[in-house]
Amino acid sequence: WRWDHVLVNIGNHFDLKASVFQAPRRGIYSFSFHVVKVYNRQTIQVNLMQNDYPVISAFAGDQDVTREAASNGVLLMVEREDRVYLKLERGTLMGGWKYSTFSGFLVFPL
Amino acid sequence: WRWDHVLVNIGNHFDLKASVFQAPRRGIYSFSFHVVKVYNRQTIQVNLMQNDYPVISAFAGDQDVTREAASNGVLLMVEREDRVYLKLERGTLMGGWKYSTFSGFLVFPL
Amino acid sequence: WRWDHVLVNIGNHFDLKASVFQAPRRGIYSFSFHVVKVYNRQTIQVNLMQNDYPVISAFAGDQDVTREAASNGVLLMVEREDRVYLKLERGTLMGGWKYSTFSGFLVFPL
Repeated sequence: WRWDHVLVNIGNHFDLKASVFQAPRRGIYSFSFHVVKVYNRQTIQVNLMQNDYPVISAFAGDQDVTREAASNGVLLMVEREDRVYLKLERGTLMGGWKYSTFSGFLVFPL
Repeated sequence: WRWDHVLVNIGNHFDLKASVFQAPRRGIYSFSFHVVKVYNRQTIQVNLMQNDYPVISAFAGDQDVTREAASNGVLLMVEREDRVYLKLERGTLMGGWKYSTFSGFLVFPL
Repeated sequence: WRWDHVLVNIGNHFDLKASVFQAPRRGIYSFSFHVVKVYNRQTIQVNLMQNDYPVISAFAGDQDVTREAASNGVLLMVEREDRVYLKLERGTLMGGWKYSTFSGFLVFPL
């Protein structure tokens, strides 16, 4: 999916159009996300992808709640030019990604 | 609201009495929060505020659960002396803020 | 409990067998966790422990949801050789710890 707003993008390594972060250098990065589902009768599963592989997942499945977040976070060893992004593995997000966030930063270079 | 306990406050830039963080210098900061709602029939909305503007929001709305957290996190570009704090935009928190956390640190200076 | 997989373990200070992080040096560390409960009729409480003391807690108590996370995060002042780990204070986790994460890193040394 595509994010509609970037709060911080030092170095411009997050490509908003593709909504993919491409690592400028090798290192340990911290990533976290909170994807907010608006009321609907579905369970969503969100995967954090490194290149084409899912690393961690998060779920939101409550059917009686207006807004509920699928959240998770992780430290990743990332190679230069690796791509990191979110993928909606299951379910749909009606009403868009409002209130959802995806953040990452370099903890230390290797 | 007011927090009742500070675990870490290097530089003493978090004012416990006002429950506001005031940035000692310009830079990218990471902030995250988990606000725990005790069982009640309300949806809460928590905003992370930078100066007087909401930056991100989180929700907890399940009505059948003893404790549920409204969580989110973000990287922010912060100017020197900017104030960052949480605001309960909607709902009430009966029983206080027990188990709730609010954390921030400087990722790198600018 | 025991984690079955380590994504990042620079310095090898996380002991997978004991599932305990032992700090290599004094400093401020960031810790966060997301413990995923699979559908069951229990409320779980997860404590983040520093040595033998609980520092923060998280809850997951929804009874109608397939997967739900107990999440929290914190900055901690940690002394050299302090042990930091998760403890399931209440409830059981049927089906294991799949999708759960526990992450920590040194924000700055003291």
